[in-house]
Amino acid sequence: MIKFSLCPRYEIAFELLGKKWTGLIIRSLLDGPKRFSALSEIIPHMSAKVLADRFKELERLGIIVRNVYPETPVRIEYCLTEKGKALQPALDEIQKWAENWITLDPP
Amino acid sequence: MIKFSLCPRYEIAFELLGKKWTGLIIRSLLDGPKRFSALSEIIPHMSAKVLADRFKELERLGIIVRNVYPETPVRIEYCLTEKGKALQPALDEIQKWAENWITLDPP
Repeated sequence: MIKFSLCPRYEIAFELLGKKWTGLIIRSLLDGPKRFSALSEIIPHMSAKVLADRFKELERLGIIVRNVYPETPVRIEYCLTEKGKALQPALDEIQKWAENWITLDPP
Repeated sequence: MIKFSLCPRYEIAFELLGKKWTGLIIRSLLDGPKRFSALSEIIPHMSAKVLADRFKELERLGIIVRNVYPETPVRIEYCLTEKGKALQPALDEIQKWAENWITLDPP
């Protein structure tokens, strides 16, 4: 039962990744930093309010950072931290499983 | 943007794994089939009602099966299907990430 001593961390990770759109937001930032509007276009069914909430949460957790470039007009981009980038292997494995095992239209 | 064509499957996987206790239930069944009471002991903070709900959902999704052995008294065990066992690499990667990056007591 030793492994269950790790469960609080593990649960936190699942609660994070289990929130609707979070995995997808992180996945699309793995390609590189993106503006708010670019993310909105990539995930069109997610509302701007939800994206703003997710960004705030991911920033609070140290998974993304918000970079403000003092240009005219000001440019704001979101990018993954090392902690965020480190999620790639987990996201890859979940995607692999989903592709192999989840049927969208059961026969 | 090709990868986002996969998003419905991916979201289903995240919603499944994001439910409190689900990851832990699957993880403990990776060791082998278990009875209801054994799972309850392994995850003591989870109520029996929640465990029953999770088992029902996981059975519906084809991730676990419920084996009934006609002994006296009857023995019922839950075990992972191939679809359930296939989650091991994803769970391993999430656990690795959580161990490396989640701090329970921030300094």
